[in-house]
Amino acid sequence: MIAIRPLVAGALALGIAAASFGAAAQQAPKPEQLIKWRQSAYQVIAWNSGRIKASVEGTYNKEEVLKAATTISAIANSGLGALFAPGTETGKGWHDTTAKPEIWAAGSKVGEYAGNLAKESTELVKVANTGDLAAVKEQYGKLTRTCKACHDDYKAKE
Amino acid sequence: MIAIRPLVAGALALGIAAASFGAAAQQAPKPEQLIKWRQSAYQVIAWNSGRIKASVEGTYNKEEVLKAATTISAIANSGLGALFAPGTETGKGWHDTTAKPEIWAAGSKVGEYAGNLAKESTELVKVANTGDLAAVKEQYGKLTRTCKACHDDYKAKE
Repeated sequence: MIAIRPLVAGALALGIAAASFGAAAQQAPKPEQLIKWRQSAYQVIAWNSGRIKASVEGTYNKEEVLKAATTISAIANSGLGALFAPGTETGKGWHDTTAKPEIWAAGSKVGEYAGNLAKESTELVKVANTGDLAAVKEQYGKLTRTCKACHDDYKAKE
Repeated sequence: MIAIRPLVAGALALGIAAASFGAAAQQAPKPEQLIKWRQSAYQVIAWNSGRIKASVEGTYNKEEVLKAATTISAIANSGLGALFAPGTETGKGWHDTTAKPEIWAAGSKVGEYAGNLAKESTELVKVANTGDLAAVKEQYGKLTRTCKACHDDYKAKE
């Protein structure tokens, strides 16, 4: 049991106590499926981040930014930690995982980073609603810095 | 020009006039990227649909259902049509597209189906907020029938 303690600590940091699966545990998805879903989730975030970037750097479109920010915020607040359940430290979804083992290690800051992503994307929805381009740019910068911080520490180069 | 008319009609049905890309058109993503994103978006919807199914068929968890429904609704309302832009009728994202050519054909009902997905998922968020399990089950059924209707007509068997 001692050997898996760091994994458990990491799981807790991600907010994935076994109970958080709820009824899904009855037919728990396989690790490859979870990895596929998390790779998909970050792709959808990337798609929407690109839309915001294009809008704030080009012709600003309030509705476009609002839709994109709402989608990122929903995913960031959806409980992504469940997709990093024990058993998914290695393996292949659409491609080999680029998640570093440090995610599940003792002292992992990944839960904190995930919280920052949720916080800053939720704030971006509020700011996008005002339609104030300068404020949207500033908040979008805050959001992308939460992505970078986590990737720098916990995402292997592809 | 006549030859591409059905594609244009389909594009309009999906709400993807060229202008809907807005500034993104300056550096338009490649078709393969768009296909990858749309495959990812439907995977994230599938992940969240599975969470709702597990919760309504097992131990009901209001917060879990609310997070999942919010994510589906955000994606459904995000403008998925842009990921079916002309040029993406065939090709490979994570895998060969399973989108049928009829999506882009004259008389395509795909825009209507996409609207139904957005409508029923948005309604599910409202119902999930009440925490009424019977109502959630009923509305979740309405949501999944919009998925099936579109898959039956426009998604090739994998």
